[in-house]
Amino acid sequence: MKSYASKLLENAVEELSRLPGIGRKTALRLALHLLVEEANVAESLGKALVKMRNEVIYCRVCHNISDHEVCEICSNARRNNSVICVVEDVRDVMAIENTSQYSGVYHVLGGVISPMDGIGPNDLTIQKLIDRVKSGGISEVIFALPATIEGDTTNYYIFKQIGDAGVLVTTIARGVSVGDELEYADEITLGRSIISRLPYENSMRGQ
Amino acid sequence: MKSYASKLLENAVEELSRLPGIGRKTALRLALHLLVEEANVAESLGKALVKMRNEVIYCRVCHNISDHEVCEICSNARRNNSVICVVEDVRDVMAIENTSQYSGVYHVLGGVISPMDGIGPNDLTIQKLIDRVKSGGISEVIFALPATIEGDTTNYYIFKQIGDAGVLVTTIARGVSVGDELEYADEITLGRSIISRLPYENSMRGQ
Repeated sequence: MKSYASKLLENAVEELSRLPGIGRKTALRLALHLLVEEANVAESLGKALVKMRNEVIYCRVCHNISDHEVCEICSNARRNNSVICVVEDVRDVMAIENTSQYSGVYHVLGGVISPMDGIGPNDLTIQKLIDRVKSGGISEVIFALPATIEGDTTNYYIFKQIGDAGVLVTTIARGVSVGDELEYADEITLGRSIISRLPYENSMRGQ
Repeated sequence: MKSYASKLLENAVEELSRLPGIGRKTALRLALHLLVEEANVAESLGKALVKMRNEVIYCRVCHNISDHEVCEICSNARRNNSVICVVEDVRDVMAIENTSQYSGVYHVLGGVISPMDGIGPNDLTIQKLIDRVKSGGISEVIFALPATIEGDTTNYYIFKQIGDAGVLVTTIARGVSVGDELEYADEITLGRSIISRLPYENSMRGQ
């Protein structure tokens, strides 16, 4: 056991090293940094973390994180709330928002179906999505889940439940990344991008 | 500007990304991790950081961090307090303690003399060290500062002040690391280790 000279420091290092990707060496570096800085640096960091954890709520409609009962996206009158993009988690919402290419709304599942990890449909917000679709007013559901077995399983599970609801169900395009050389693309991605080829004129819409 | 969906989350990410080596992506990952975990994880992390910053003090004798006015090392009756090892910061104390090869006490300078960074002798605890040595009862001062121009400057500055105090002044050995191949050692280190060669019998003491 390392000697930290101070139980307070040791405790702070212990807590920091519980964070993902932070080992004891990094935790020690961070703790010593906070010791050298003004006291209000540690104070405002500590308060921000506790406040966030205790006060952030999840949007009643789409389950994205939010400061209000209905999130800024769902309550935005300029968004098209007849189109729902289904994503795994909050980070995916941020990633899509950053593209500025999407004006519909979201549904955050909170994960994907993964029997290996003990995650079934009832651990996710799938039923809420189905209710949302069946309550009407929805024209399209876009699947934007990861291109993994779990993602595909989840897509299929949801599709089986909403396939008869009369809404268009689409999935985001998989293919060779913009700017990538074909020779470096993996075979599955390249294969999918040949199968999902589209008329040249359509491919120019994004430009 | 990225959309974080929640001002509370954005604020937490902002605070986390002020830490050294933590960018916005890592900060976001850490914040979302805390959101998913039980509330007491964020709570105990936040409290540990604030408590550490507000309550850790520096040892009155050696300036190591401490929970008490005099640290555990200085107040330990089994340590030889006539030998003082001079180090740059708290981490060096930990590193030397982890070797279990040293039973003396320390003096933490809090940095090294570095005109480039505007750090002079008065920004460090050098005067306290000189007072400590001149107050008597010290037989040896060991320099364990970094092998840089700043470290060497600091060694020399201190040596000029305590050279006439009648104490033995030593510096830790520099040489090829244990287990290293000679051909990969840098020239300066290899050169120093030839100059500082020692009788073979002495070299076995550590084994």
